[in-house]
Amino acid sequence: MSLAINFDDIQLAAQRIKGVANRTPVLTSRTANGQAGAELFFKCENYQRMGAFKFRGAYNALAQFTPEQRKAGVCAFSSGNHAQGIALSAQLLGIPAAIVMPLDSPAIKLAATRGYGAEVITYDRYKDDREALAKQLSQERGMTLIPPYDHAHVMAGQGTAALELLEEVGQLDTLLVCLGGGGLISGCAVAAKHLNPKIRVIGVEPVAGNDAQQSKRAGKIIKINTPKTIADGAQTQFVGQLTFPVIQELVDDIVTVSDAQLIEAMRFAAGRMKMVIEPTGGLAMAAAMQGAVDVKGQRVGVIISGGNVDIAQLAKYLA
Amino acid sequence: MSLAINFDDIQLAAQRIKGVANRTPVLTSRTANGQAGAELFFKCENYQRMGAFKFRGAYNALAQFTPEQRKAGVCAFSSGNHAQGIALSAQLLGIPAAIVMPLDSPAIKLAATRGYGAEVITYDRYKDDREALAKQLSQERGMTLIPPYDHAHVMAGQGTAALELLEEVGQLDTLLVCLGGGGLISGCAVAAKHLNPKIRVIGVEPVAGNDAQQSKRAGKIIKINTPKTIADGAQTQFVGQLTFPVIQELVDDIVTVSDAQLIEAMRFAAGRMKMVIEPTGGLAMAAAMQGAVDVKGQRVGVIISGGNVDIAQLAKYLA
Repeated sequence: MSLAINFDDIQLAAQRIKGVANRTPVLTSRTANGQAGAELFFKCENYQRMGAFKFRGAYNALAQFTPEQRKAGVCAFSSGNHAQGIALSAQLLGIPAAIVMPLDSPAIKLAATRGYGAEVITYDRYKDDREALAKQLSQERGMTLIPPYDHAHVMAGQGTAALELLEEVGQLDTLLVCLGGGGLISGCAVAAKHLNPKIRVIGVEPVAGNDAQQSKRAGKIIKINTPKTIADGAQTQFVGQLTFPVIQELVDDIVTVSDAQLIEAMRFAAGRMKMVIEPTGGLAMAAAMQGAVDVKGQRVGVIISGGNVDIAQLAKYLA
Repeated sequence: MSLAINFDDIQLAAQRIKGVANRTPVLTSRTANGQAGAELFFKCENYQRMGAFKFRGAYNALAQFTPEQRKAGVCAFSSGNHAQGIALSAQLLGIPAAIVMPLDSPAIKLAATRGYGAEVITYDRYKDDREALAKQLSQERGMTLIPPYDHAHVMAGQGTAALELLEEVGQLDTLLVCLGGGGLISGCAVAAKHLNPKIRVIGVEPVAGNDAQQSKRAGKIIKINTPKTIADGAQTQFVGQLTFPVIQELVDDIVTVSDAQLIEAMRFAAGRMKMVIEPTGGLAMAAAMQGAVDVKGQRVGVIISGGNVDIAQLAKYLA
């Protein structure tokens, strides 16, 4: 079966987002390298516009709307960063936006989404079916629904993060990518394996929400209850119909880290790298530095997915 | 009277530190610009090696040691970041180092200084004379004393921060620089006024420690008691014999900000720019964004001096 996206899609996405998305920095830390026994290259999507990689996929999708779609608007459901990515992209392209978000999203994400001019509709993430809510909305208003990960344009957009990383640092032995619904890792795996067929691409999930790990082992999509983890960007119940085949074919392994390890990663990022990362943003960093993956002696890409964490909440993690 | 340093000294310093010091990023923030009503360019020395601009001056000084000086070693007194700068530079150059530091320095700074292999000698910043202690040490052991700011090689090294900023962003209307003993601002003023004679260079002090503001107005160095402020890098009692003439001739004005304003700056940096800055690092940012200086409609350089803050302490500021 052919995959939903190929390398050309990612290159085209890179052209669409050029000059609009930030080309985020690749940071290194001698202390991190010492701790990991490896050479780590952190692709810092916490410095992306709206604070996370999600802007890439959202903008790539909206930039391909027809004039009719632009006029009717976009709607989306999201645990937070995709919402902001859609809202900001819609604002930049002059498209109306309505976003279905969990009631308990970090306040900073709710406020930012509204700040970009989008209408926000909240739901209870432990009770309601957000997808059904968003579909209803799109039908009632004729808006195009852009899902947070299971969409070829979104996946291709997210893949530009790995494309930029590999363009900047050259060959890597391993690429570590956080995994919620699989949008980021599927785009990144397609880019990375095309540029460097020998690279090992490894997904990192919260231990409480290892549905992708289970799914990969079972050979079919496994659905779990909404996991309780501080990694709010990876609180997905299942990977996508489009992302799963990519994960099956191109992702070499999936590992997990605990919430305690995410907090340790956030503390390291703040204390030593002077950088704020959100819990989900610590997944790949924790895996690289705290032994979830053997990376000794390797050149390792680590994608930091975002930095959108309430500072009062961050204060608790750092205390 | 001729000043202690000129532009050539800064260019030579830039050559000495090239490939050793980080060329730190210049970051921008649309939100910060909106709040300030200006175009702000943040020169992020929190991403400098050892986490602050002090590495520049320390390395520039130690790189000029004679073989005899290298063998006997270096000693220094410092509220923290200069200590780390000297310790790391000494380690890189294979020079023994002994550092006199306040007992109440942030634990992260004490640990980092020892981590770079330096011997640490502590003192009480409200009782002891650190300069006398360091002089005694240098006499007893034949070590060369490198003061934290009142030294031409240190001043020239710090000036490379402004040199890099102006090389990268071009002409600026105003440059805001934090001010403790005056090492950073004197180096930066010499670089900035040479490259752009019309630029306004403004120093920013904590309101509790406005000795430089008083000194500039009085036309002579005014000594104050050790100020109680969270800006531990600007807890100096007086500016230097070498830095003061530069401040008199090349610094256009000196303004002050409160500790509450520094905390607001640290919160903005963490929440919106995903960046950890130390309280002293917030001086210029607070001045630019909270009205201490009129920068409306201008292109403004803002030097973020460092990011070395205990994360437990940072947690309190962010809570």
